Amino acid sequence: MAKAEIGVIGLGVMGANLALNIADNGYHVAVYNRTTSRTDEFAASAGELADRVTACATLEEFVAAIKPPRPVIIMVKAGAPVDEQIAALQPLLEANDIIIDAGNANFRDTMRRFTDLEGSGLTFIGMGVSGGEEGARHGPSIMVGGAEAAWKRVEPVLTAISAKYEGEACAAWLGENGAGHFVKTIHNGIEYADMQMIAEVYGVMRDHLGMDAPSIAAVFSAWSTGPLDSYLIDITAEVLKVSDVVSNRPIVDIIVDAAGQKGTGRWAVIESQMMGVPATAIEAAVAARSLSAMRAERKNAQVRFGLPPQQARREGQQVIDDLEKALLAGKVAAYAQGFAVMTAASAEFDWKLPMATTARIWRAGCIIRSRFLDEIATAFTDTPDVANLAMTPAFSKIIEETDGSLRRIVSESVLNGLPVPALASAVSYFDTYRRERGTANLIQAQRDFFGAHGFERFDADGAHHGPWGGEQG
Amino acid sequence: MAKAEIGVIGLGVMGANLALNIADNGYHVAVYNRTTSRTDEFAASAGELADRVTACATLEEFVAAIKPPRPVIIMVKAGAPVDEQIAALQPLLEANDIIIDAGNANFRDTMRRFTDLEGSGLTFIGMGVSGGEEGARHGPSIMVGGAEAAWKRVEPVLTAISAKYEGEACAAWLGENGAGHFVKTIHNGIEYADMQMIAEVYGVMRDHLGMDAPSIAAVFSAWSTGPLDSYLIDITAEVLKVSDVVSNRPIVDIIVDAAGQKGTGRWAVIESQMMGVPATAIEAAVAARSLSAMRAERKNAQVRFGLPPQQARREGQQVIDDLEKALLAGKVAAYAQGFAVMTAASAEFDWKLPMATTARIWRAGCIIRSRFLDEIATAFTDTPDVANLAMTPAFSKIIEETDGSLRRIVSESVLNGLPVPALASAVSYFDTYRRERGTANLIQAQRDFFGAHGFERFDADGAHHGPWGGEQG
Repeated sequence: MAKAEIGVIGLGVMGANLALNIADNGYHVAVYNRTTSRTDEFAASAGELADRVTACATLEEFVAAIKPPRPVIIMVKAGAPVDEQIAALQPLLEANDIIIDAGNANFRDTMRRFTDLEGSGLTFIGMGVSGGEEGARHGPSIMVGGAEAAWKRVEPVLTAISAKYEGEACAAWLGENGAGHFVKTIHNGIEYADMQMIAEVYGVMRDHLGMDAPSIAAVFSAWSTGPLDSYLIDITAEVLKVSDVVSNRPIVDIIVDAAGQKGTGRWAVIESQMMGVPATAIEAAVAARSLSAMRAERKNAQVRFGLPPQQARREGQQVIDDLEKALLAGKVAAYAQGFAVMTAASAEFDWKLPMATTARIWRAGCIIRSRFLDEIATAFTDTPDVANLAMTPAFSKIIEETDGSLRRIVSESVLNGLPVPALASAVSYFDTYRRERGTANLIQAQRDFFGAHGFERFDADGAHHGPWGGEQG
Repeated sequence: MAKAEIGVIGLGVMGANLALNIADNGYHVAVYNRTTSRTDEFAASAGELADRVTACATLEEFVAAIKPPRPVIIMVKAGAPVDEQIAALQPLLEANDIIIDAGNANFRDTMRRFTDLEGSGLTFIGMGVSGGEEGARHGPSIMVGGAEAAWKRVEPVLTAISAKYEGEACAAWLGENGAGHFVKTIHNGIEYADMQMIAEVYGVMRDHLGMDAPSIAAVFSAWSTGPLDSYLIDITAEVLKVSDVVSNRPIVDIIVDAAGQKGTGRWAVIESQMMGVPATAIEAAVAARSLSAMRAERKNAQVRFGLPPQQARREGQQVIDDLEKALLAGKVAAYAQGFAVMTAASAEFDWKLPMATTARIWRAGCIIRSRFLDEIATAFTDTPDVANLAMTPAFSKIIEETDGSLRRIVSESVLNGLPVPALASAVSYFDTYRRERGTANLIQAQRDFFGAHGFERFDADGAHHGPWGGEQG
């Protein structure tokens, strides 16, 4: 058998699907899994792709099966298992071999691994992969961080296996070292915000308009042909349509309202905090998931407080029309925040992250794929140095067209006691951002009063202190 | 001269004031500063306290001047300077000497320092000190973490120098290792939220009701005799009253609206994320400060978008009455979140943080001191195992009495384009928390659809998957 052109370590669903995707695209791939039975199962299931798959029982066999210089994709659980795998591989590999961590790594681990491997002769790539199991099998979005020369060597295979948006590959080199995994983290943060806002809009239809799941499904279906057209809107319509065979009820109505989270939303929040850039839509989404998991507490609280009375409501279609626009406005805020965090990180870590390219490789393959991202790609191409997505001509127009709807929905929901934390965060963000004269002057006065922190004056340069006199702090 | 009973290293304003406070309370204190001229200045300024101060030019002199076993307070810039100081001290100290870091340390650094000093024979205390310069001089709030036996040895002096609330000392041992600095971090996070909510209420009066600073000062003055009675409300009234001698205008009107932050708000957010406990009021406050600093962007955005038109408004006094209650409701949310984060951290780090005691030592000395904290102390004393402050009888009653006002203020502000991010986060928090049936069922359906994450059913145990069929992800 000919030598493999690339190797994949870790044959969980994601790794196995990635390997099949590679073989499907005409590449010969060597595979290895710590538990050999899993490797055997995988080989047995490869079907007509079997002649392009070399299943290896040991790491030594695996390394020997790949033509040097070897690209080796590691797709194991993020964290210590990646370090263990790198340690096991290192003595077997040769100069110029490339280790590619394709797992959901925290980019700070990725940064550390780059440092650790410096001078080893090996090359490292941190690669974000989005699209779930199906994406891995048939075309994910691929976000690459590492040396550009290393990317050039694996570009053909990664481009081949990636999703395509109107023929363009959704795979790109985004910058040195941790750039790919950082961008993947922000992708996931935006995904949290996107899903939360959809859930809020669903809640208004269910709990305020009293609509059943099939009727709400019809609304999302209708929206999926408009500006909200996206994978998440499509699958929302899809899941809302499905009946449960056991209860004969819409399946969403028998699913417990306690959302899980695997930590990437939290990472996105922490990194945005480290950059000092507001990402309040992601923060609201993470908080909503955490609160959703506190079921016993929520039940007790409803017993104690009841729900606020529903105020008179507007005609249903009016509310639904506003909901569509509110969701679009909310998305603009969430994406504006996410891209602003990436802009700050790019400066901080000297990555030169290409914003238009990032939007472009998110247009297909990944969970947040949408027409909207094509518009973002265009906006950043037209105005690459814009301070905020909201200030691009295309998106400031969207804001103008949707701002009133967002305002009405949040205002009414707040009056009616319907939780819309992420949409409300979007209003707060816009309203703080668009106001030249804010209220932080009072905060500065307080801080100077109790901590002598000083403040700036409009009418003079330098730092000043107030004539507070008397007793302080 | 007799040997000193305690030493203070670092004679910046905080360290110098702490040393004077110690001497003022009858203790003999040795002091040392890396820059000797600062030590000399300090000694010269000690006045009538000079006979209880031993100013030392070298660390060796300093250590020799203190009676063993020595308590040594380090009050230098947080971070590397603390590690350097510890390293310099360690060879000079003897078994059972206590190093007390009184700076604004990140509690994770404090945890590391405990580990580093294990087996050294030295004892370490991480001590949060709040109250600004005046607090340090005349009575701060003191939050101690470390071995209880070490606390017992320094309790008399720390109790003596601390603030007093109706005769009770605002100093306490809160738990092992990093407990004190953790609690200080959450204190600061709550302080951010408190200040931001006050600024939002000020903004509604200034920009919606069109009130001038002296009129707003009068409102805050009136509130300071009611349930909002607190240091921050007092100083808000105070700074709003002050005229600028240069411009003859209210000084708040010439202060630039760009708030600084030193990082403890961010730490509070990051730690709440690590615990998976929502702290959205603190998140909103940190974001608002960050946005306040983006002055050029905000100016451009106002040029582009203008401000939303002000809708017809209610009679001023009605709005002001609602603002008072909204601020109280917002405070309940912020404090409920802060205490919930501490509860989670207490379990995570096995600290057994005493919630009532924490509230008690915040009643005086620190920036967030207030009558409100006395009520929190009572609530946690009466129901120590309550899941959330909002569920205590006293605070659930406050919520009932203020909920409508909070709702009206946020709803109207959102319609009028007045940014109220922290107050809005409070509404979202309550509305999510008080609803037994949320909308995360939809999120779980989506996650199962694209990632096969599984979901729980109301009518059956275990993890389930939807019959989504067809093409996914």
